[in-house]
Amino acid sequence: MIRHICIIGAGNVATHLSLSFYKKGLTIDCIHSRSIDKAKKLALQVDSDFTDQADKIPKNSQLYLLCVPDDAIVPVAKSIHKHSNPKAIIAHTSGSASSTTLQRFFSHFGVFYPLQTFSKNRELIISEIPFFITASDTKTEKELAALAKTLSKKIQIISDKQRMVLHVAAVISNNFSNYLFQVSATLLKNNDLDFSNIKPLILETAAKIQDKDPKDMQTGPAIRKDQKTIEHHLDFLKDYPELKELYRFMSQAIQKTSS
Amino acid sequence: MIRHICIIGAGNVATHLSLSFYKKGLTIDCIHSRSIDKAKKLALQVDSDFTDQADKIPKNSQLYLLCVPDDAIVPVAKSIHKHSNPKAIIAHTSGSASSTTLQRFFSHFGVFYPLQTFSKNRELIISEIPFFITASDTKTEKELAALAKTLSKKIQIISDKQRMVLHVAAVISNNFSNYLFQVSATLLKNNDLDFSNIKPLILETAAKIQDKDPKDMQTGPAIRKDQKTIEHHLDFLKDYPELKELYRFMSQAIQKTSS
Repeated sequence: MIRHICIIGAGNVATHLSLSFYKKGLTIDCIHSRSIDKAKKLALQVDSDFTDQADKIPKNSQLYLLCVPDDAIVPVAKSIHKHSNPKAIIAHTSGSASSTTLQRFFSHFGVFYPLQTFSKNRELIISEIPFFITASDTKTEKELAALAKTLSKKIQIISDKQRMVLHVAAVISNNFSNYLFQVSATLLKNNDLDFSNIKPLILETAAKIQDKDPKDMQTGPAIRKDQKTIEHHLDFLKDYPELKELYRFMSQAIQKTSS
Repeated sequence: MIRHICIIGAGNVATHLSLSFYKKGLTIDCIHSRSIDKAKKLALQVDSDFTDQADKIPKNSQLYLLCVPDDAIVPVAKSIHKHSNPKAIIAHTSGSASSTTLQRFFSHFGVFYPLQTFSKNRELIISEIPFFITASDTKTEKELAALAKTLSKKIQIISDKQRMVLHVAAVISNNFSNYLFQVSATLLKNNDLDFSNIKPLILETAAKIQDKDPKDMQTGPAIRKDQKTIEHHLDFLKDYPELKELYRFMSQAIQKTSS
């Protein structure tokens, strides 16, 4: 059972996971980050050491958990592997990077992927976040799954391919939706209207599909093939050519699903 | 002060508004719908008469509130105006139809637009829903605003043009987002993954922007110009040509906002 963890990174994912492990009584041996200030700040919250030097990371950790951007995974794994416990597990937390990126440097490697959008200063209910595990071998898989179970009720063992599918779905549902909220906010502001006017609608849109199929929840001019309203909206959007293109694109896509 | 209301329609908006008025102690004189069954069902809940005949609507109502599809507004207004109280206000509840569509049939007309997505069997906190009022004259405007205030804390007087902007923003934020959730659900299902895995992410995406600017909340491969992940995702999506097009379109749009 993993009890001693070295966290690599000090960003949003590192912060949320470190604090959650710490609250569950696990030991964070060290926070290792290129930014010594961020490492120190997080370390103070979880009662751990901190360092910005790869050769100063602890040798006794059972897990080295990489909470770093995708393109830092290989360089960081390379920099730490000589200084770490060779029997330990190394895992990254990325939705898109393959588990095998870690194969060159460690015998036991895997992915510990929490599917959520993490921001500083926003509390999350960690027990509701689904964790997805991919690992080099059954023992590592079990160790990582057991660790995830200390945090969350929702654990699943998946393949690298399935994790990519989850990541694509997350990008579509989170990043692309957030972009829609952003352009709505701009459009409202340009017309002396406050974005807060549509915030209840946005919450309800997300709440509705928690227990209903989104396909059954679709409303609006596109799905009811209300071409008059669509043309009216497109005409208004002629001053916003990119938004007009977005509106047309999405309306056509919605109409295709119902034909 | 409006105390006596005749509701035209028996769908989701009619149901939510009728029940809310009734709870606030206002009198629903009658539910008028083409479907006598739906009219009766709703009337029983709000202690009112019901009819499917335009010439049977009450003459003493102070407000005839049209909760009908956009293309039914003019035909319904035409069918009821000879049988209604000529001093009464007529208002529709549509985001897209102009207030002036009612001008031909009534002296006092307006729009009573609640900006929310209404579904049967889903409770909504009506006091949190923003209501937007547009009216033919100041007196009507005041009457409709006072009525809205009995239900909600958030009332605003706006122009027809502004209501259209709100409606466009609502379509983008609600209908288009819901479409993104729908395609995510399909993609997951096709890869033996459950849609419920990304439901917490969807809720958090909506929750985040309640007190933050969506522009500052954007994450993911597009905004960080992670072309490697984008290409990886596009390659995976080659089996889903429409989704691939959506992914490319949205990623480019997000990247434009940051350049």
